[in-house]
Amino acid sequence: MTMGSVSLVGAGPGDPELWTVRALRRVEEADLVLYDALVDAQALRRVARGQCFCVGKRAHRHSVPQDTIHRLMIRAARRGKRVVRLKGGDPFVFGRGGEEALALHMAGVPFEIVPGVTTAIAAPALAGIPVTHRGMASGFLVLSGHAPDLLEDALGAVRANGVSLVVLMGLGGRDQLAARLIKLGWRSDTPSAIVCAAATADVWTWTGPLVQLASASPPDGQPGVLVVGEVVAVRDALGLATASEVRDESEVTYGRRR
Amino acid sequence: MTMGSVSLVGAGPGDPELWTVRALRRVEEADLVLYDALVDAQALRRVARGQCFCVGKRAHRHSVPQDTIHRLMIRAARRGKRVVRLKGGDPFVFGRGGEEALALHMAGVPFEIVPGVTTAIAAPALAGIPVTHRGMASGFLVLSGHAPDLLEDALGAVRANGVSLVVLMGLGGRDQLAARLIKLGWRSDTPSAIVCAAATADVWTWTGPLVQLASASPPDGQPGVLVVGEVVAVRDALGLATASEVRDESEVTYGRRR
Repeated sequence: MTMGSVSLVGAGPGDPELWTVRALRRVEEADLVLYDALVDAQALRRVARGQCFCVGKRAHRHSVPQDTIHRLMIRAARRGKRVVRLKGGDPFVFGRGGEEALALHMAGVPFEIVPGVTTAIAAPALAGIPVTHRGMASGFLVLSGHAPDLLEDALGAVRANGVSLVVLMGLGGRDQLAARLIKLGWRSDTPSAIVCAAATADVWTWTGPLVQLASASPPDGQPGVLVVGEVVAVRDALGLATASEVRDESEVTYGRRR
Repeated sequence: MTMGSVSLVGAGPGDPELWTVRALRRVEEADLVLYDALVDAQALRRVARGQCFCVGKRAHRHSVPQDTIHRLMIRAARRGKRVVRLKGGDPFVFGRGGEEALALHMAGVPFEIVPGVTTAIAAPALAGIPVTHRGMASGFLVLSGHAPDLLEDALGAVRANGVSLVVLMGLGGRDQLAARLIKLGWRSDTPSAIVCAAATADVWTWTGPLVQLASASPPDGQPGVLVVGEVVAVRDALGLATASEVRDESEVTYGRRR
C-alpha cells in the first residue's frame, strides 16, 4: 500500500478567511482532518470532503490524549490517507506541533508543516494593537500561561517594561500575572489588554492599566490573549477604545467590504 | 466622491500559498497595491487586476520614504480607490504597520488590518524548528536587528538561555550578536540557526553552536532570520540536518504533494 502523509496545519485565530491558501487546499484534499476545538468546525465541514474528527484541546480539557492523536495520524497515513492535523493559530506556537512532527518522523511517516497566522500577533492586531511599534517596543515576548511555573520562570527572564508581553492561555491566572509583573518592577499603569475570541463574532476586548487587569471580566469559556506594554496605547490612539470595556466590537476596521 | 479604503495586509514569508484567503481576495479586488520588496511580485501580478507599485523596503534600502507611502495610500483612498498595502510577513511585526494605521486614522481614511503569517515563526518552522517546545522553551522573544542600539537594549532585558530568541533583519550584525549573547551569559554551544529566503526556492539553512554563528556564510542579498535556543535541536532530531550547512533544501517535508 502507498504511504500517505500528514500536514501539520495552522488554522489561524478563528476567522476561516485567515487560513492560508495552502491550508485551505490541504483541507479540501484531505481524507482525514483531525482538528482542535479552537478551529471553526462549521467552516471546516463546508470545505472538507474527507472525514473530520475533533480531538479537543481547549484550555485544560483534552478530549483526546496526545499519544492517541499521534497514533491516529500514523495509522491513517500508513493506510495511505492524506491526513491534515488542523490546529488553532500556528502549529509550532504552544501547539505541541514539534512533538507531533517528532512522532511522525520516528514512525517514518512523511509530513510537512503549514505555518498559520498566530493568535499571539493577530488577536492584538485585530484589536488595533501592533506588538512592535517604533519608539514603543523593539520586540515582543510570547509566553503561555498554561503552566504557571514555566510562566513564572520566563517572566523572571525579562526586564520590566523591556518589551511587549503577550500571554496565551493566561486568562485564568491574570490576577497573579499582574501582581507578579508589578512585583518584578513593571509599572502598575502599563497599558494592558485582553482580547477574547479574536477574529470571531464573539470578539471581546478590554484595555486598562496593568494594575486593573484582574478586575476585567472577560466572558467565560472563550480563549483569550493578554497583552502588556506601551503598544496597547496605539489602540486608543486609533480611536478604538474610549471606555475601558467594549462589547460586541467587530475587528479593527471602519470600512470592511465583506 | 465615495471614500475608498486601505487594507494593511500581511503576505507571509515568501510562498504565495502562505497568503491568507482574505489577503488573496483583497489583492484580487484592489484598485491599487503598494507592495514591499519582500513580496513575490510575480505571484502578485498574476492575481491583481489593479495597479501594482513596489515601494521598496528591504534591509537598509528604502526606495520610497515612509511618509510618501502614507500620502500615496491616503490620496488613492480619497479618490475612491480600494488600496492594499501588502507587506512581507505580518503587517504589525517590524513593518511600521502601526504607523500606517495611525496615519490613515488621522486622515480619516477607513482601513482594516489583515494579519499574515509572520516570518519570525514560519521561517524556523519550515526549517523544522518550533519556536516553542515542551521541556525546551516555554516562550519566545522576537527582536529586530535593524536598530543595533534597540537590539542591545532588548537583549539586556532577557536572561541568558531563558527563552527562544528570534532575530529578524539581524544577519549583518550576527557576529556582534553572538559575542554579545555569550557575554550576557548565553552558553556558547546554544543551538543556533540561520534561515534565509524562507518559503522560497532559494531557501538556505545553517545550524550550529552560537559561538560559530559568525562563521556561517549566508548568501548575499537575501533576508534572513536568526534563531538561538535549544529548540534548534528539534531540526536535527527530525533528521533535517546532519551537516552544519545545507543548500538548496526544500521545506520541512518528505512527502509534499504539489
